[in-house]
Amino acid sequence: MLNKIRVQVEPIGKRFFLDGSKNCLDALTDAGIGIKSLCAGNGTCGKCRVVFLEDEKRLVTKQENEILTQDEIEKGVRLACQQVIDKETSLYIPASSLSEEQKLQVLGDEANIEVDQVCKKYHLKLKRADLSDMQSDFSRIQKELLAEHNEKVEKIDLEVLRAMPEVIRKNSWEITVTVREGEIINVEPKDATGRNFGIAVDLGTTKIAVLLVDLLSGDTVDKKGAMNPQIRFGEDVMSRINYAIENKDNAIKLHRIVVEKINETITELCKNNDIEKTSISEVSIVGNTAMHHLLIGLPVRQLGLSPFVSLTDKPLSIKARDMSIDIAEGGYVYLLPPIAGYVGSDHLAMVLASEIEDKEGNYLGIDIGTNTEIAMKSSKGIFSVSTASGPAFEGAHIKFGMRAAPGAIERVVIDNDNCEPKIQTINDKKPVGICGSGILDAIAELRKVNIIDQRGKFKPEKGCVCKDTKGNFQFVLDPDINSGNGEDKDSKEMKHIECPEDGISINQKDIVEIQLAKSAIRTGIEVLLENAGLTFKDIDKIIIAGAFGSYIDPRNVINIGMFPRVDLERISQVGNAAGVGSKMVLVSAKIREKAERLAKKMDYLELTMHPSFTDHFAKSTLFPDPEDII
Amino acid sequence: MLNKIRVQVEPIGKRFFLDGSKNCLDALTDAGIGIKSLCAGNGTCGKCRVVFLEDEKRLVTKQENEILTQDEIEKGVRLACQQVIDKETSLYIPASSLSEEQKLQVLGDEANIEVDQVCKKYHLKLKRADLSDMQSDFSRIQKELLAEHNEKVEKIDLEVLRAMPEVIRKNSWEITVTVREGEIINVEPKDATGRNFGIAVDLGTTKIAVLLVDLLSGDTVDKKGAMNPQIRFGEDVMSRINYAIENKDNAIKLHRIVVEKINETITELCKNNDIEKTSISEVSIVGNTAMHHLLIGLPVRQLGLSPFVSLTDKPLSIKARDMSIDIAEGGYVYLLPPIAGYVGSDHLAMVLASEIEDKEGNYLGIDIGTNTEIAMKSSKGIFSVSTASGPAFEGAHIKFGMRAAPGAIERVVIDNDNCEPKIQTINDKKPVGICGSGILDAIAELRKVNIIDQRGKFKPEKGCVCKDTKGNFQFVLDPDINSGNGEDKDSKEMKHIECPEDGISINQKDIVEIQLAKSAIRTGIEVLLENAGLTFKDIDKIIIAGAFGSYIDPRNVINIGMFPRVDLERISQVGNAAGVGSKMVLVSAKIREKAERLAKKMDYLELTMHPSFTDHFAKSTLFPDPEDII
Repeated sequence: MLNKIRVQVEPIGKRFFLDGSKNCLDALTDAGIGIKSLCAGNGTCGKCRVVFLEDEKRLVTKQENEILTQDEIEKGVRLACQQVIDKETSLYIPASSLSEEQKLQVLGDEANIEVDQVCKKYHLKLKRADLSDMQSDFSRIQKELLAEHNEKVEKIDLEVLRAMPEVIRKNSWEITVTVREGEIINVEPKDATGRNFGIAVDLGTTKIAVLLVDLLSGDTVDKKGAMNPQIRFGEDVMSRINYAIENKDNAIKLHRIVVEKINETITELCKNNDIEKTSISEVSIVGNTAMHHLLIGLPVRQLGLSPFVSLTDKPLSIKARDMSIDIAEGGYVYLLPPIAGYVGSDHLAMVLASEIEDKEGNYLGIDIGTNTEIAMKSSKGIFSVSTASGPAFEGAHIKFGMRAAPGAIERVVIDNDNCEPKIQTINDKKPVGICGSGILDAIAELRKVNIIDQRGKFKPEKGCVCKDTKGNFQFVLDPDINSGNGEDKDSKEMKHIECPEDGISINQKDIVEIQLAKSAIRTGIEVLLENAGLTFKDIDKIIIAGAFGSYIDPRNVINIGMFPRVDLERISQVGNAAGVGSKMVLVSAKIREKAERLAKKMDYLELTMHPSFTDHFAKSTLFPDPEDII
Repeated sequence: MLNKIRVQVEPIGKRFFLDGSKNCLDALTDAGIGIKSLCAGNGTCGKCRVVFLEDEKRLVTKQENEILTQDEIEKGVRLACQQVIDKETSLYIPASSLSEEQKLQVLGDEANIEVDQVCKKYHLKLKRADLSDMQSDFSRIQKELLAEHNEKVEKIDLEVLRAMPEVIRKNSWEITVTVREGEIINVEPKDATGRNFGIAVDLGTTKIAVLLVDLLSGDTVDKKGAMNPQIRFGEDVMSRINYAIENKDNAIKLHRIVVEKINETITELCKNNDIEKTSISEVSIVGNTAMHHLLIGLPVRQLGLSPFVSLTDKPLSIKARDMSIDIAEGGYVYLLPPIAGYVGSDHLAMVLASEIEDKEGNYLGIDIGTNTEIAMKSSKGIFSVSTASGPAFEGAHIKFGMRAAPGAIERVVIDNDNCEPKIQTINDKKPVGICGSGILDAIAELRKVNIIDQRGKFKPEKGCVCKDTKGNFQFVLDPDINSGNGEDKDSKEMKHIECPEDGISINQKDIVEIQLAKSAIRTGIEVLLENAGLTFKDIDKIIIAGAFGSYIDPRNVINIGMFPRVDLERISQVGNAAGVGSKMVLVSAKIREKAERLAKKMDYLELTMHPSFTDHFAKSTLFPDPEDII
């Protein structure tokens, strides 16, 4: 540590250390911070702008003088590729310089959380035992904690107790104990009060987001995303449940590999931030009910069969070591409770983080995924539904669909005059497929420029579509090919050209997938409105949470009819609110209590049991009228 | 079970089953009930008298007609060796027919304990989940328990939760749950409320006493004694601590073998009584602090070094499976707290069972062992000391010492006129050594007939002693040899005959061992009296607990000066009170609370720190004056 160079990166709150001086772009990249760069570090593309905080007078290279404005230079803006870090440095990275993947990680509006430590550390200088004072070790600590810190403990973890006498006696009776809800969960030598960390996890069906949190300040020290390794045993929740119930070994395997992945991610975060695992006092995990059950090894058979009931809807504190999660010896994994079989603790965490409970008025909170959970807060209370929106928004079941990875088309605009699509890909790479936000854009635009009708059918008479070898219409997103396609537009006889074999396109089936998905969500909203006796106009705010929800263009959400036409400013995209909620209950006992109370308050509404479910669903499949498109 | 013959044995409350008809003596012996028998079942020694309850008209054999009185025969008394059990039978076994070892087991005055179940079973017929009622399984049970039984549960054991959905669904939603302190610890199919058992253990350094208890009635269904297998790694507490701290494997071994022995004993008790281990809801264990720590795998180094502190003095509830003790899935092992490093939870249990806390006046409670713990209750409170009385009373460090096993001399009377000893051995076997009560008797008698003086020295002028090959005096207990010895008595010249080589005798060193032991105990009592500002006359009752304490002749306790001269009726021998205390906290939540409160109330007095310790010790080594001998 002595000769390492400390680098602090804002606004993502990441800190890392260098062994010696290093090119700034390389340093950031090696630290796992994805920075845009298209010119291979030659200082010509200008994508890697960073701000050197408190160091505005840094040397300016020739390339920088050419690319940056004088104003920028004076404010400390430089190109990361042109700068060397050779001393303690604080950097600010504008969102525009972050690669798309990096954005995914740093998203999530973290409410200003007031820390109210659940796991507290106390430095104790104990009086040495002698023949005139033969108290038990535990009693000695118990009394000291009460007298010096007004902290009442009643219990000590058995493993901690086993290790304790040696720690006490080898450190001249000077130790640090960690207390959680009246139990001593860790004993460390000397004064270790300065290092108290926690891990907040949002365990998704596809992705796992892991935050390393400083429990003293409440700051997020570092974050890391990982794929859920269970994915190879089933992409969606139901196929994973089916895999688990095939036999006991499968269920154990699903449990084991996700725990391993969490451990691995914690190890990496600790290593990158020079933190020992023994300083991690607690882990908070949220996730959908199936992920929750699989994680802790509960059976999931009943989650796969009607009436889809959860085994428990209570918060759980499980010794981390009983789950083989490697943190402080007596530390716990805390799990917020699931609300129902298909409304998990991630939804609870989202509702918590978006703070809709405390707000005046009517709120909708939506977390779009394979299952989309929607909560509505009104004077009638908070009701939630889960709706099977399917994986289309994640790029699955779409011919050219893919996850949000480099080369995925993420934005689409179609020219009303010549049908020419303009596309944007992640990392500006050559297009290789379409991700969720791209599909949403494409279909909204197809409707807007009237290439598809209200029922979603291609209108070949517009002449903007081609025919594949089987005679089915497609709309090609590859601009070169499409402009060629445009030429036929004026032809009276609609001789649609043949689609190029390898062109990235949207077909009729893709449109139907999106139609079903958006219609499922719209139905959920309508049923909730009906249940609350409200109409869409009464909704004061729509909060869209989740990684996907952060990338979509809210205008296009309206244009496909997932929402009716509504003021855009009433829509708010909050990023990974579930992860934020997981962090909130990690750093604050008060918020944890609040969340547990909230869980009891939230009601679950079974959509399919609602009398007007079928009606709503049929109506919702339609795309909007032209006048409802913005 | 269908064709088995049930046998009920009183007053020990043991029940067992026979596969077919069987000789009564063999049946009892095979069931582990030690019955006296000296004639190899020929019906001539008359030792194996038993009473056939509700079956007074049983056939009488020729041998029985010769041995038994007419009155006995009419009351159902028969000789076990002469009778066959071929149908359901209830027997009463007079204490005189029980072998000494068996007496050890059945001792322990069980106070009439009012049951106040800690682990309660509830039979639930749950409403089946459907789409209109999608509560989680746990919530459903929680609400049913509250509504139907006013029982509030907040937690469920994770393993029980894992197994629960299948038990519920395979049994038409009809189950039995076991609740312990707000936690569901077991789920069984259908109605299992009738079978709720517990295990009470007194874990001694030498012996383990295990009781199988019906938690519904509070009755002891069966009991079993076993040797503590740790004994081969050290006979006394200190040598066992030294073995444990040699290396970690040793400590683990000590932990493992005692757990195995407890498991083995539980298995046997369950098998003999046709009880499944899954019906055992809880285990209560008491023991000295070293046994307590070794059992749960706590380090004992600090118990072996001054100031000898315990690691914890709190009651503990540990999941049985975390200790590898095999009972109901979520069941607990409950451990009463140790009071200090050398005053264990067995002492607390003894004080609890003897109920001295609730009584008016001043009480002494003594549990004699290698370490003797003494509690004194006075208006100043309850103070305890631990005194290193050594293993002499257990037969160790005594030349011909042995444990209380068949052939051990257990009673000694010495004729005042001719020095002739009369001895009684366990099971009337040929004498092979002397057990604790025999040594105590022998030395008390030696002093009474003035063969040793007040300082414990042999008085060779009495002419009752012989000389060994090294010229040291001995007193031979073998009556044949001794009567030969008596012949020399009148000789003026004290030519002591040579001691026989293989005669069982008491030597000067043996006397010193007993002197030190009794003096340690007397010192403890004197310090406690001084602390309370009392003298021996103020003591209303002296309670002697423990197996050894039950066998000693209280008169001789006074005659060696362990106690001063006192009315014999003030001395009460209560048997294995620690085991009774262990059972009391097993069957009653109220008593458990009381015990935990009692533990906090009890004060520990470090003998060696007391200013007059040395004085008292020196004075206490003397044997009493002739006028203080009764």
